[in-house]
Amino acid sequence: MKIALLGYGTVGRGVDGIIRSRVPGVEVARVLELPDRLTDDRMTSDYACILSDQSIELVVECMGGIEPAHTFIAQALAAGKHVVTSNKAVVAAYFGEFASLADEHDVSFLIEASVGGGIPWIASIEKVRRIDEVRSFSGIMNGTTNYIIDSMRRDELDFDVALGRAQELGYAERDPSADIDGIDVANKTIISACVAFDVDCVRDLPVTGIRTLTKADLEFFAARGLTVKLFGRGVSKDGCYAVAVEPVAIPLLSLEAAVPSNFNLVSLEGFTVGPLKFYGQGAGSLPTGNAVVQDVIDVVHGRIQRYDFSRGLKYDPSLLTGDYVIRSSVAPSHSEGWAPGVWRLRSLTPPQARQIYEKVLQEDASAFMAALPQEG
Amino acid sequence: MKIALLGYGTVGRGVDGIIRSRVPGVEVARVLELPDRLTDDRMTSDYACILSDQSIELVVECMGGIEPAHTFIAQALAAGKHVVTSNKAVVAAYFGEFASLADEHDVSFLIEASVGGGIPWIASIEKVRRIDEVRSFSGIMNGTTNYIIDSMRRDELDFDVALGRAQELGYAERDPSADIDGIDVANKTIISACVAFDVDCVRDLPVTGIRTLTKADLEFFAARGLTVKLFGRGVSKDGCYAVAVEPVAIPLLSLEAAVPSNFNLVSLEGFTVGPLKFYGQGAGSLPTGNAVVQDVIDVVHGRIQRYDFSRGLKYDPSLLTGDYVIRSSVAPSHSEGWAPGVWRLRSLTPPQARQIYEKVLQEDASAFMAALPQEG
Repeated sequence: MKIALLGYGTVGRGVDGIIRSRVPGVEVARVLELPDRLTDDRMTSDYACILSDQSIELVVECMGGIEPAHTFIAQALAAGKHVVTSNKAVVAAYFGEFASLADEHDVSFLIEASVGGGIPWIASIEKVRRIDEVRSFSGIMNGTTNYIIDSMRRDELDFDVALGRAQELGYAERDPSADIDGIDVANKTIISACVAFDVDCVRDLPVTGIRTLTKADLEFFAARGLTVKLFGRGVSKDGCYAVAVEPVAIPLLSLEAAVPSNFNLVSLEGFTVGPLKFYGQGAGSLPTGNAVVQDVIDVVHGRIQRYDFSRGLKYDPSLLTGDYVIRSSVAPSHSEGWAPGVWRLRSLTPPQARQIYEKVLQEDASAFMAALPQEG
Repeated sequence: MKIALLGYGTVGRGVDGIIRSRVPGVEVARVLELPDRLTDDRMTSDYACILSDQSIELVVECMGGIEPAHTFIAQALAAGKHVVTSNKAVVAAYFGEFASLADEHDVSFLIEASVGGGIPWIASIEKVRRIDEVRSFSGIMNGTTNYIIDSMRRDELDFDVALGRAQELGYAERDPSADIDGIDVANKTIISACVAFDVDCVRDLPVTGIRTLTKADLEFFAARGLTVKLFGRGVSKDGCYAVAVEPVAIPLLSLEAAVPSNFNLVSLEGFTVGPLKFYGQGAGSLPTGNAVVQDVIDVVHGRIQRYDFSRGLKYDPSLLTGDYVIRSSVAPSHSEGWAPGVWRLRSLTPPQARQIYEKVLQEDASAFMAALPQEG
């Protein structure tokens, strides 16, 4: 099978290398790149010549970003080509549109690499759903923030020092906002909810990152047998669903607390299978390239993957109601004192907690908030 | 598709319930049971009438044990019926024979439920191998022993008390030998090696259990930042492979150390995908039933799974060479003192360590041995 690669960055090069050395029968026939980066014969900067090439049955998009990725994917599907993508931002933004186009033109739209890098997360959700409903999912979906929190805790570093190390190692961008403010996790949470719950998930979910987390916060939690991780979460029940991205205080002895460095750990709860957890490299050229190539092999094997969001699940954030903790020099509304400068807020939905936290941030920009584990 | 169920115990009932309520298009048409347990119309104690029934395309074996399971599976494959089994003992003993029969008669032989209960372990190894070699696998494959060790550590119980609790909860048999002596893990390690390395794995691998583990041993390790778990392990390199079952001392902060109660956690290392870890319920009616039903659905979807052990990998236990610790009132050969009554043995293969340990046991039946983590 002849395929085209859109983008030749970290992931694109990984995909190309894995296919060349390990996947006989698949040929990367064309590569779309910028005009000043055309370094081999397969490369072109003209997408039209890929679109019109009938011999190319599959387009692999690993450019990242919203445009032109969105347009290119939509055009490929409309031209009757299968699409595999590692681009979480564009999938989170346009999943419904891509799913409809794939359905209409009888082609596959595959997104394994968009969440969890090399972890077979999307495929596992889909496999579980052949038998079970997925009641909930949660987990560590961003390696950068896990590296920062893990370094702060194990090496007792300040946030800025840990972030600097992550940047030196190439785990964090120069502008780390998408990671530390939870935007990357929000995209992955939206995609996971779409697949797990068969719903065109809301985009304006409550999102809180770890920008204001301090070493002292981690010490506060550790003294109570807890630590903090940035979680994407989703739950579905009785025709409704809820999603949220926020730091969550979890038991120090839990599996999630033990996740080191820049690894990911994602969990789901199925009705008959119980809890399942999946751990691995959430990013990187070869792990993410591996996930892309797994999707390519599925297309070669004739797997047709369709998404149907017509089930009409209702968004109800009250499904994620729980207690929160805010560390701040000012008392949040609806709070009770827990320790000096630490406040406990009972029984809030994630949007309610986010609203209160935003008000606190106006007076104390260094305030930190985390969800507390459910009791009982 | 019409299928027959052999055995109507814990797993068989789980399979029957899941198929009836969740898998349209599949019918459990016959159930093989003992003559005094025929409680519904589908049940028979005459296997010949299942074998000769051309309408039955798939036989699901969940009787357990070696015979008559071995004969029944071989006969079903020879009769051109697909076979799905949850029976690790019979698969570990006769994998090569079953694989040849399935190949010869052009049917599938599927074994997901034989290792790791509801965890998609076998399928994940197979998927990884579409692209990668599996360099190694390891993990907690037995929920009973994990429950015992976890209770000993978290609740500071003696071995016998923890074992008693496991028996009360139904996690351990009245005769717990197969679990605590590592025999169950040995079967799962053999099966994992067959699938991961494409080899008809040796049956006489070194196997050490946790029968002699004490609370004091766990305290000794904890003081050194370690704890103990019972691991099945396999590694492959340069045309060779090695396997072993033994307690392994691991860092207290590792993911494996955090595995609670009767859960399993199995890991593999692929060349491009890196390390992947899978966590879930390793036993139980619904999780194991779920794994069986996933295999049934794969057969319905036309998946043909074949195993070919002709690669001729050589068994070389030196691939797992490492250091060991023995707690004993007598000094083992080749050991150096580590602490009072605790000895360290450097650079041994698992069979060498096992041999030394067996000698020690003749003089001190309460001695305990564990492999130490690789340094560097």
